[in-house]
Amino acid sequence: MKNDNDDFHKEISFLKSEINRSLKKILVKSEPKYLYDPIKYSINNSGKRLRPILVFLSGKLFNANVSDLMKAAVAVELLHIFTLIHDDIMDDDDIRHGKPSLHKKWDISTAILSGDAIFTLAQLAINSLDKNTYSRLNEISLSVCEGQALDKEFENDTSISMDKYLDMIAKKTGSLLGLCSELGAIVSEQEIDIRTTLYSFGVNLGLAFQIQDDYLEIFGEPELMGKSLGSDIHSGKQTAMTILARNMNEKEWIRLNSKKTDLQGYKNFFLENRIDHEIKKLVEYYINKTSKSIEFVKSSENNFLDDFSNYILNRRY
Amino acid sequence: MKNDNDDFHKEISFLKSEINRSLKKILVKSEPKYLYDPIKYSINNSGKRLRPILVFLSGKLFNANVSDLMKAAVAVELLHIFTLIHDDIMDDDDIRHGKPSLHKKWDISTAILSGDAIFTLAQLAINSLDKNTYSRLNEISLSVCEGQALDKEFENDTSISMDKYLDMIAKKTGSLLGLCSELGAIVSEQEIDIRTTLYSFGVNLGLAFQIQDDYLEIFGEPELMGKSLGSDIHSGKQTAMTILARNMNEKEWIRLNSKKTDLQGYKNFFLENRIDHEIKKLVEYYINKTSKSIEFVKSSENNFLDDFSNYILNRRY
Repeated sequence: MKNDNDDFHKEISFLKSEINRSLKKILVKSEPKYLYDPIKYSINNSGKRLRPILVFLSGKLFNANVSDLMKAAVAVELLHIFTLIHDDIMDDDDIRHGKPSLHKKWDISTAILSGDAIFTLAQLAINSLDKNTYSRLNEISLSVCEGQALDKEFENDTSISMDKYLDMIAKKTGSLLGLCSELGAIVSEQEIDIRTTLYSFGVNLGLAFQIQDDYLEIFGEPELMGKSLGSDIHSGKQTAMTILARNMNEKEWIRLNSKKTDLQGYKNFFLENRIDHEIKKLVEYYINKTSKSIEFVKSSENNFLDDFSNYILNRRY
Repeated sequence: MKNDNDDFHKEISFLKSEINRSLKKILVKSEPKYLYDPIKYSINNSGKRLRPILVFLSGKLFNANVSDLMKAAVAVELLHIFTLIHDDIMDDDDIRHGKPSLHKKWDISTAILSGDAIFTLAQLAINSLDKNTYSRLNEISLSVCEGQALDKEFENDTSISMDKYLDMIAKKTGSLLGLCSELGAIVSEQEIDIRTTLYSFGVNLGLAFQIQDDYLEIFGEPELMGKSLGSDIHSGKQTAMTILARNMNEKEWIRLNSKKTDLQGYKNFFLENRIDHEIKKLVEYYINKTSKSIEFVKSSENNFLDDFSNYILNRRY
């Protein structure tokens, strides 16, 4: 962390507006409206653009070409948007970024097709870059599909261990963040060991992020999260919170689930069993791993990666 | 057509089995089962593999590298399978290749995710080929999405002209066949004018194919088609048959649609108004265009393209 916080916040605010400008440029077509209206709705969302920002922060370490970085950054954001649209159908989530999810605003068919087209736009965004970018984007896309498949398999399966859960979120959430931090190295043609190290940085950051998200799903502020809370528990999803709950006080946890319990009831249980503390320890463990993995660039003036970890983990939403 | 029919049939039967062998090799993973069981189900179908066969027949003209052609062939078949899975959800089609469609055998979530993964596998299949392959595959994929969007827009819109309909099927069906015939030229690094000509060949073939499909949707044999017939009309889809019906005898056509009419009722109407003849003329028009577009390779000993057009259009199913 060579830079003071002001520099960092200026940097990400600048990057976010540049990324939004480039995303808008993707939207040159308007017909057929059946396809491009929902695509516009999804791309012009109020997303935080964390993934494309990470592409830039990683590329900065190696003075990567800015125009190439932007192509890679746009591609990962489009890939992310596409997975959210399809996941929202699969998980029947009604709200995304404080607005109706695409399949609620339109319908399932429209959401499937728009997602497919946005995935295709992600591929096209990088068609002038080196083939490694393309291969890696698609390897990670397959990994994200596998992660989502495991997530669906685990639903209502109360035998899932923390290890299996961590493997699932490493694929579903970690691999895409890993791709983002690796892309800066790919675009600047770094050696494979540097690529691998930056990939691990992103994966561990993704684990920390998702575990914290499981916590915020219970203890966050609904207005800031832009969605209603507690839905994962009620739909039988396994999360770091529910697995810790089961591990730490199984009898009471089963009793709690066997009766109609509201969010406050779950909150009380988690606090009484100090599961909020355990979760925070787990998040810290993965954050330390991210920080250690990038020690080799710690001396770089352009190293904003630790600031970035702190930034995305200090969100109250 | 330099080759007698026996040679041609031996060739496509050989290609089909080679293509099936390569498709099987894609299936190296088996976990998570939630993802890979449905992927296997879809890839091991009884499809005719027309699109990958066309890639080979086109590549043969230019003595393209066989291993590269196979990668491109596998990619287009996977792209095709992916679009069928998602289209079957959108169109609520229950049967595909004589078996339950994926979302009927499993559910919509599984079908969305498997389709996404198969699309990704298509991208990975060509990651060692020239970047043109990748760009073109994705340009066409976007065009197929646009075609499907127009198809959905046109549902129950009885003002759609034949021109608009042809534009829609050129995108939805034609462009993928265009890609297949163009790929032989791309893989062997032909000049852009040759690529464009071969692309037109495939697009026109696709138009002929789809218009004939509209005819067979009414007059085909359900057992051979592997699906129930007449569903397009009952779901309000616009097809070449319904547009011709409207153009040729609008008053009677409206009357027919206002009452509960079975498939035989529609058949009688089409025969009485000689719409079957009109359709055949339209199919012939596009077939002539395909044949003319490839006159420059007519003298090639390796030219099976006309045989291929005849082959796919002489199907009774």
